[in-house]
This record gives sequence, C-alpha cells and structure tokens, in this order.
Amino acid sequence: MRQLFHLAIDPGSRAVRIALAEKSLDVELKAEPVWERRQEFLALNPAGEIPVLVEEDGTPICGAATILDYLDDAYPERPLIHGDALARAEIRRLTDWFLVKFAYEVTDCLVGEKLMKRFLVGQNPSSDAIRAGLSNIHGHLTYIEWLSERRTWLGGDHLSRADVAAAAHLSAVDYLGDVPWADHPEAKEYYARLKSRPSMRSILADHVPGAPPPKHYADLDF
Amino acid sequence: MRQLFHLAIDPGSRAVRIALAEKSLDVELKAEPVWERRQEFLALNPAGEIPVLVEEDGTPICGAATILDYLDDAYPERPLIHGDALARAEIRRLTDWFLVKFAYEVTDCLVGEKLMKRFLVGQNPSSDAIRAGLSNIHGHLTYIEWLSERRTWLGGDHLSRADVAAAAHLSAVDYLGDVPWADHPEAKEYYARLKSRPSMRSILADHVPGAPPPKHYADLDF
Repeated sequence: MRQLFHLAIDPGSRAVRIALAEKSLDVELKAEPVWERRQEFLALNPAGEIPVLVEEDGTPICGAATILDYLDDAYPERPLIHGDALARAEIRRLTDWFLVKFAYEVTDCLVGEKLMKRFLVGQNPSSDAIRAGLSNIHGHLTYIEWLSERRTWLGGDHLSRADVAAAAHLSAVDYLGDVPWADHPEAKEYYARLKSRPSMRSILADHVPGAPPPKHYADLDF
Repeated sequence: MRQLFHLAIDPGSRAVRIALAEKSLDVELKAEPVWERRQEFLALNPAGEIPVLVEEDGTPICGAATILDYLDDAYPERPLIHGDALARAEIRRLTDWFLVKFAYEVTDCLVGEKLMKRFLVGQNPSSDAIRAGLSNIHGHLTYIEWLSERRTWLGGDHLSRADVAAAAHLSAVDYLGDVPWADHPEAKEYYARLKSRPSMRSILADHVPGAPPPKHYADLDF
C-alpha cells in the first residue's frame, strides 16, 4: 500500500491526509522523526522534510504542495482543483496562502513553537513568536469570513485544495486551543462544515503524547 | 499589455520574468514598493506580496508558484513542465526546492538582509543571517552538481520550471557576488548555460540604484 511519512501535528502532512481521504485513496501512515535525519528518509527526500508520499512501486513524492498537485495529476477522479486556468490559479493562490503565508504568520509561531520545538526538539518556545501568532490569526480568520460571505467554499463553488490546506492549518492550531472562534463566528461556521466531513475523522482523532487536545477539538458541535 | 508588479532583485519576480520570456509572452514591468502597502496593490493581492501578474482584462494572478502553474495552464505552448504525473511531481519538487527551501536557507539570508532590508526598509542586516546564508549555499550548489551529473536539466531532459526557479535565485544571489563559483565548477557550468539563454537578458541587465552588481554578474564567460 502507499505510505505517507508524516507527523500527526504537522499541517503539511495533515493536508495530504485530508486530500487522500477526499479522493478515497488508502494510505499507511508512518510517523517520521525528522529531527533524527535518518539516512533511509533522506534517501527518499534529500530536503529531510515531511510529508513524503511513497507509491506502491517505491517512488517518493515530496512536499505538501507537490503532493497535492501530484494527486490531481495521477488520480483525476474527485478533483481538488477545478475550472479554467484563472479559476485554478485562484485555488492555487489560496492553497499557497495557507501552506506558506498562514504557516509562516500563524502555525509556525504557535504549533511550531509550542509543540514541535518544545516536545520534539526539547527547546523552549519563544513568547514573542507565540504573541505574534495569536495576533496574526485574527487577520486570517477575517479573510476566511470575507471569502465565506462570497463563495460556497474558499476557492469557489466546489471544495478544493484551498479548503484542504485551510482545514490542515486550522485544525493544527485548534489542537492547541489557539483559534479565537468566539471572535469569528462565520469562520467557525466554515470550519464546522469542514470538520463534519469524513476526510477529517482521522485528523480529529490525532493525539500527541503528553499534549492532549482541548475538549472541543474533536467535537463537531463546538 | 499584461503587467507584472515586481522588484528587480526579488527572486520570485525574476522566476516569472524568465518564464514569460521562455514562453515568448510580452509583459510590462511595474516596480512595486511593497513596503508602502498601497491600497491599489492590496486590492490586486490582499497578501501584499510580489510578484503579481495582471492580465489584459485586469485579472490578477498572485505569487511566483501560482503564476508559473497558471502560465502553463493558460499558455501550454513552450511548456515549462513535462511528462507524466511522476515526472511533473519531480519538476514541482525541485521548483519548490528553490522557491521555498533555497529562498529560506540562502536568498532571504543574503539578498533579503543585504538589499531588501538595508536599502529598501532602512534596517541593518543581521550578520548571523548573512553567515548562515554563505554557509548554507554550499549544500545547495553541491546538490545542483549532483543533479547536473545525472540529467541535462535539473528536472530531466528538458528545461523546466525547476531551472527557471534556480536561475531566479542563483542570479539574485550572484548579483551580490555571494555565489562561491570557484568551489563548485559544475554548478558554474550549469549556471553558464542558463545565463546564455535569451530569457536571462533582462535579468542580467538589472541594476539596483546604489547597489551595482559585481563585474562578472552580466558576463556570460564569468
């Protein structure tokens, strides 16, 4: 069976898991301790980064954005990108928004500092970074609300990679209880729709040893 | 005519300029002072970032990776991505390598600190960041050499987005004279092949006021 080298709380890995589930593609999850820089893993991805998808014939596909593209190229049924070149560019812009901009401004500051750094690498989180992440998230939630008022899903009429990327990052930050849902009711409504999809079940069942999620994390009626 | 909001030394903007030239698509360049956060520009790209390509009908396409994808979707002649799903994934992996990993580990530390920060925002560069960039670049040049020994171009038999992204980042760092070509003769040979392409002419003619490039920058026989 195809395998995904991942970490439960890593948002890029989560995006791939959600995309695979949306496309009804089976996968075996393999937790990869990237900080160990295992030779076998570096042979799969010289960048030393997760996620890496390995197809049944052993071919590795590296990186969340590349894997999302690959899945729609290789398995065009149940597409996660739609429409003409401009519609596709809009979906790509928003996918990139979450995988790069939201990651840099929010997820890295919160999940990166509080979980990856503290639990996995044994370093203390930077309180400046945490403060920045907690402040930056408001602008992103407001943007989700702006888009939700105008479109069924972030990128248009259909669920797309943009929603998959948003679900991955929102769920990772929500695992910490750091999404201020009360201040952003329409963003909460949008995330409730994502949460109720079967593709989110395995994400909502994630449990990092020593860092349990808040009670509302897996609750569909949060 | 289509327009590109860019900055001369910005590697993402350079990648789009090279891709447009490889595809023989005309463009009018508009220097965008991103730090001013102009309302008209934020209306084109709420992320406030360059590059932004604006088609003749006024539609904006935002971000280097998204624009590279869009150009091959909208103008499939002279493609910059080739082959089946796996071959395309390999090209995407390497494009991402330069647009994200090389950017983070090298270009941001050198071009970001020395030019963007010092000349444009008026802050002093961090000597730690510069030291890190100058050290990190060796691993990347070694990887280019490893790939060059095995393939005609980085992603396979044909020039692709991966080479466009590499040319954009290498040229931006070379503008500072910070690429240690003497230590990496095969990477130099690869870059000499890129430099001789007509698509690089406008890049090699770039000149940032107050920060002239070293003499070898535009020299095809450097």
